[in-house]
Amino acid sequence: MNLAVGIDLGGTNARVALVGSGGRVERAEKVRLDERAPERVAELLAARALALMAGAGGRALPVGVGLAAQVLGGSGVVSVAPNLGWRDVPFAALLGRRLAAPPLLMNDLGAAAWGEAAVGAARGHRNVILVFVGTGVGSGLILDGRLHTGQLGVAGEFGHVKVRPGGRRCGCGELGCLEAYVSGRSLAERIQERIEGGAPTALRSGASAGDLEQAALAGDGPALELWEEARELLSVAVGNLCTILNPRRLVFGGGVLAGCPALKEAVKKGLFGYALGVSRVDLDVVDAELGDDAGVVGAALHALHPDSPTVTS
Amino acid sequence: MNLAVGIDLGGTNARVALVGSGGRVERAEKVRLDERAPERVAELLAARALALMAGAGGRALPVGVGLAAQVLGGSGVVSVAPNLGWRDVPFAALLGRRLAAPPLLMNDLGAAAWGEAAVGAARGHRNVILVFVGTGVGSGLILDGRLHTGQLGVAGEFGHVKVRPGGRRCGCGELGCLEAYVSGRSLAERIQERIEGGAPTALRSGASAGDLEQAALAGDGPALELWEEARELLSVAVGNLCTILNPRRLVFGGGVLAGCPALKEAVKKGLFGYALGVSRVDLDVVDAELGDDAGVVGAALHALHPDSPTVTS
Repeated sequence: MNLAVGIDLGGTNARVALVGSGGRVERAEKVRLDERAPERVAELLAARALALMAGAGGRALPVGVGLAAQVLGGSGVVSVAPNLGWRDVPFAALLGRRLAAPPLLMNDLGAAAWGEAAVGAARGHRNVILVFVGTGVGSGLILDGRLHTGQLGVAGEFGHVKVRPGGRRCGCGELGCLEAYVSGRSLAERIQERIEGGAPTALRSGASAGDLEQAALAGDGPALELWEEARELLSVAVGNLCTILNPRRLVFGGGVLAGCPALKEAVKKGLFGYALGVSRVDLDVVDAELGDDAGVVGAALHALHPDSPTVTS
Repeated sequence: MNLAVGIDLGGTNARVALVGSGGRVERAEKVRLDERAPERVAELLAARALALMAGAGGRALPVGVGLAAQVLGGSGVVSVAPNLGWRDVPFAALLGRRLAAPPLLMNDLGAAAWGEAAVGAARGHRNVILVFVGTGVGSGLILDGRLHTGQLGVAGEFGHVKVRPGGRRCGCGELGCLEAYVSGRSLAERIQERIEGGAPTALRSGASAGDLEQAALAGDGPALELWEEARELLSVAVGNLCTILNPRRLVFGGGVLAGCPALKEAVKKGLFGYALGVSRVDLDVVDAELGDDAGVVGAALHALHPDSPTVTS
């Protein structure tokens, strides 16, 4: 069995794992990032990756890294990583200098999509879209068996399609993005606005998306209005994704969908009302399966076999 | 120089051409389809293709066919071709039986996009989207150097993204599609509705999209309203395409955009106001260059080199 090291690099922690070519996580550890300077992060992660390799027989293994960032494909340069405060960091080179070979970098949702397509909820399929609705909103696109990253590595920014042109300001600075209406952060802000505006709601400051769903299902008017809007906007936007890309399988992930099961089910049904007829003939929608492992598994398997997510061993 | 035969199969005519590997059309002819029965069309086109091969030295040449249809990728089966009235026709087999080898079928806008990416307005680029606004609305997607057709060969149905969910009924039978607002056919219908509704417009029955633009620019209120709506809907929808797919180059084609230069320029600018910032860093928008040749050139070059639109000879 071949092995690879997968790294899921977040803003405060990283997960580093030894992954088998069949997708099994052999060993994994969480690493706290006390400093975010690229050199220091590279040092820390390289040390953990080398330790995992040493424990697995000492051979140099491929390394894949997924991170919440705009990654310039093959160049290994991180253009923008908001959570880490990085701009134009040649991270593959920094990390590769300390390893036997340069690692393969990818966007975190691309890594998760790759993991789900390889050994998770979409295994065996070559046209797979991971739709992620959590603190932020995004997607990972596996098109005809390849990760689609686009010209500058920023394809799949599904959270920033404009669903209300000129509408609410998004965290990205632009107006009317899907994320400005349905992300966990935006829903919390919108609940707070309702409370401050004196709306007749039982919701309290700090309410989560899950609390919102509970209140909506209990008939709370302002909560129901936000819930209905999220359902409609997500159904249309995901339906349009299917019309454009004709995927075989959609994989739904992220904390908002996990915390709002009724919303998730409603969007799963609702999108079929908006996706073009011919694009939904052979479409199904499933829940993500790999949970916290998706990133490390996807990054590792992508580093092992960048040309196809199909796992044969 | 290698040669191939490209066929652009419409509902009433077909264009059949001998194309060099550099994209030059060596010979071309228009063939009228007196019958649309698949067997008869295959016979007619095979005869023309074989005649072109005979005139070029007699060798069997690869054949590519572009048609306005849902094409099941590798299988060569045409699922639905509205203009021809076909359903589930194994056209590659019907045609291939009369040739030395089965031809490669593709959607007509996919063929045009391939032609533009190979030797037209997007030559040298690997992430190219052809946006077509004519009688209908659609797109052709070249992603990382490959034609993206999706699970069932219906990817790129850009005209059927829902821009007004629950809105106008589209020719496809669904509600609120982009095509129901901005295609040449829809604009003509909407002008007619305004006239019949007694709106204060100088437009007459039978006015074209170009007439609409002229009237709008002259200050005709109802015309301006339709024109503005088309500008806004196209700008948002094309901007969202860029946010999701991060192309390097957009190629604009089709009769409505050709006949409405002010609309085309306004959408070219407008989409930059809606595409996510990072997705428009390295984006440009150009006019299609190949005109009526796009389909035959793209189909022929795709048949010669299906793995890359880059022309080397």
